[in-house]
Amino acid sequence: MIVVGAGFSGLACALALDAAGVEVSVLEARDRVGGRTLSRPLPGGGWLDLGAQWIGPTQDRMYALVAAYGLETFPSPARGASTLRLAGRSAAGEPAGLTGLLGRLDALADGLDPAAPWRADGAAEWDRTTLGGWLAATVPDPVTARYAGRLLAGGLLAASPDEVSLLQLLFYLRSGGGTGSLLGMAGGAQQDRIVGGPAALAERMAAALPSGSVRLAAPVDAIVQDACGVRVRAGDEAHRADAAVVALAPALAGRIRYDPPLPALRDGLTQRMPMGSAFKVHALYPEPFWGADGRSGVATTDTGPLTETVDNSLPGLAGGVLTAFSYGAQARALRRLSAGQRRDALCDALAALFGPAAARPDDLVEYDWSADPWTRGCFCGILPPGSWCDYGPQLRPPVGRLHWAGTETATRWSGYLEGAVTAGERAAAEVLAGL
Amino acid sequence: MIVVGAGFSGLACALALDAAGVEVSVLEARDRVGGRTLSRPLPGGGWLDLGAQWIGPTQDRMYALVAAYGLETFPSPARGASTLRLAGRSAAGEPAGLTGLLGRLDALADGLDPAAPWRADGAAEWDRTTLGGWLAATVPDPVTARYAGRLLAGGLLAASPDEVSLLQLLFYLRSGGGTGSLLGMAGGAQQDRIVGGPAALAERMAAALPSGSVRLAAPVDAIVQDACGVRVRAGDEAHRADAAVVALAPALAGRIRYDPPLPALRDGLTQRMPMGSAFKVHALYPEPFWGADGRSGVATTDTGPLTETVDNSLPGLAGGVLTAFSYGAQARALRRLSAGQRRDALCDALAALFGPAAARPDDLVEYDWSADPWTRGCFCGILPPGSWCDYGPQLRPPVGRLHWAGTETATRWSGYLEGAVTAGERAAAEVLAGL
Repeated sequence: MIVVGAGFSGLACALALDAAGVEVSVLEARDRVGGRTLSRPLPGGGWLDLGAQWIGPTQDRMYALVAAYGLETFPSPARGASTLRLAGRSAAGEPAGLTGLLGRLDALADGLDPAAPWRADGAAEWDRTTLGGWLAATVPDPVTARYAGRLLAGGLLAASPDEVSLLQLLFYLRSGGGTGSLLGMAGGAQQDRIVGGPAALAERMAAALPSGSVRLAAPVDAIVQDACGVRVRAGDEAHRADAAVVALAPALAGRIRYDPPLPALRDGLTQRMPMGSAFKVHALYPEPFWGADGRSGVATTDTGPLTETVDNSLPGLAGGVLTAFSYGAQARALRRLSAGQRRDALCDALAALFGPAAARPDDLVEYDWSADPWTRGCFCGILPPGSWCDYGPQLRPPVGRLHWAGTETATRWSGYLEGAVTAGERAAAEVLAGL
Repeated sequence: MIVVGAGFSGLACALALDAAGVEVSVLEARDRVGGRTLSRPLPGGGWLDLGAQWIGPTQDRMYALVAAYGLETFPSPARGASTLRLAGRSAAGEPAGLTGLLGRLDALADGLDPAAPWRADGAAEWDRTTLGGWLAATVPDPVTARYAGRLLAGGLLAASPDEVSLLQLLFYLRSGGGTGSLLGMAGGAQQDRIVGGPAALAERMAAALPSGSVRLAAPVDAIVQDACGVRVRAGDEAHRADAAVVALAPALAGRIRYDPPLPALRDGLTQRMPMGSAFKVHALYPEPFWGADGRSGVATTDTGPLTETVDNSLPGLAGGVLTAFSYGAQARALRRLSAGQRRDALCDALAALFGPAAARPDDLVEYDWSADPWTRGCFCGILPPGSWCDYGPQLRPPVGRLHWAGTETATRWSGYLEGAVTAGERAAAEVLAGL
């Protein structure tokens, strides 16, 4: 069996196939495994997670994998007060009506089948409504609308509120257990980190496969299928198997040449599920100075280039790490700046949240996933307004001997490491059922 | 010089380079030239245009090419009354308020610079507004809103009103001279046809290039550029040149592998400019029976799978050809039917417009451009809501030695054959200026 892509989805798929006694080859374009996870060691010890980094309650497969591969988790810091800045000023409490708004969205999401959100009664209406438009029409307070739009479209989908449909958000909420689960630190999706980072887990998963199963630096160019099997070409190499699992985001899966060509609607999905626009930057300080002020390092705001920050400092190390996120049009605007301009903009934004001490980090460390040719954006692929109902149904059905994995195809925790793993295991089960 | 793609844009580019004395190789994936044009001969004489077919006033380059290559045009039939069906019934006059609505859209479009629609004062607002949402909020009569949405989003952009932003439509209106110009038969973009079809013109354009310039069945896999030039790989062949022009729609250009990889925002454009969903079917009858009723064969309607029809009969031949169009979600729904179901649905829809005689065509002839791996949808690529302002600026700027052509990059008559030609000639001028 051939698996295309050695991110968490491809690795989980390959491990499931291997466990069932199937010989498997994993073809990975990069010179490393781990997909949208990447660790960078820090000079003074410890590491930075440049990509995906958290796991949380109900992400059972991820906790099981961490344990099975001898790694450990540790909790995100939870002491101190969150910082909230609204309309350019420090705010004491949440924006007016936010709790009610989130509850209303959760109630709408609860009615969806995450395996077929296009079947909901309101699906067509929600698909044609942008989240930004819905918020403008629904939320009387413009600050609340702006704040919620940034937190939900940005923090969850790495997009601007006007790029995503209400249906895309509702699917994501349903898939991840609602706003409390998705937005939360302790008790939510940002509860725990993995010692060494998830990239370390990916390496151990790959190492558990039979020697030689994973081919690095082998970007797949073409997949041919016929009555006898599949032939997968990666540069000068050709691999044959009974079937193949493509464990890539749809936008990247569409860049492989298929023979016979993909059916029109499946190809159409690959044309219109662009990767999100997330900008993640680590600001390194001699110490977590915000703790002295009784602050947690968690900040959210409705204005400026940054939408949120978290404390990413490592236990037992002196240094302080504030990790800041920007999304959608704001992330793209940051990318268009020169490195110097971007540094200035980031330092100003950090200082607005945490005071002058934040304006002079020892270093700012970022990784541009949208420039990485084998990722091309984070967190994940999202369907634009008007596209979910027609193209969503194309996400999972196999095309002949081709099966589709990747976190975008998950029904539970889609967009997360957990969704990547369960999608890979679901694809493996499909393949095994067909043998 | 290398040109990727032998559609009208690539051919026009190659001819301009050749005329300037530059040696040019055109690499074409298909076994034919002409891109989104395709003719099929009819058994009794004449032909059907399965793709693009019309030219009209101010499309000066197309008329000049027709004349230069010894072809002729003939006018679309203009006798008889248009058929209008609204809310399931024959209607005598246009939907309430349609003229005012189109005038309002034209006035908004007039304020745009078609070379930089993202700079308009209202651009950000129009980008985040779907055409469907704008119509619902602006047009009191739901029939008028539905009819206008189908005619504008469908007839012009081959999409549903909820898939496209108001800015996308306004750009297109501005680029094509307004609703009167774009929607009109005589005096408008559907005024004239080319004897033998535009595919015949493409063949003559290709034949005018030096022998061996156009390589068919040579899909480009990869383009490498460095300080010395570009190397373009198509299967086992590698071609070298000082520069390359990629004359493909962005969605298809994104499927080539670039080294160095494309900048993030340019790659992002290729991820989010899907091809439209147009369904075009020719219904062949023994004679143009609608003429006996004093009808022109032109029909429009706000309901059912078909949005519009035209009389595509050829002068001097006995047979009658009604050509029907379906767009966006309706076109995709037709595609999901079995061939038999689709035939029934089309015959029913034609009969609703033209009576029982329309229900029994001798033949229905369609070509599925969305299933064609080297096209993947028609009429052209469109940017979804929330994407024009950030990604529109990426359409034309060269990336090193790579230049971008294709009708999507045109500022005048974007989406049309004329836009393809002028975009190809603009790219040729860029290349020549850099030599």
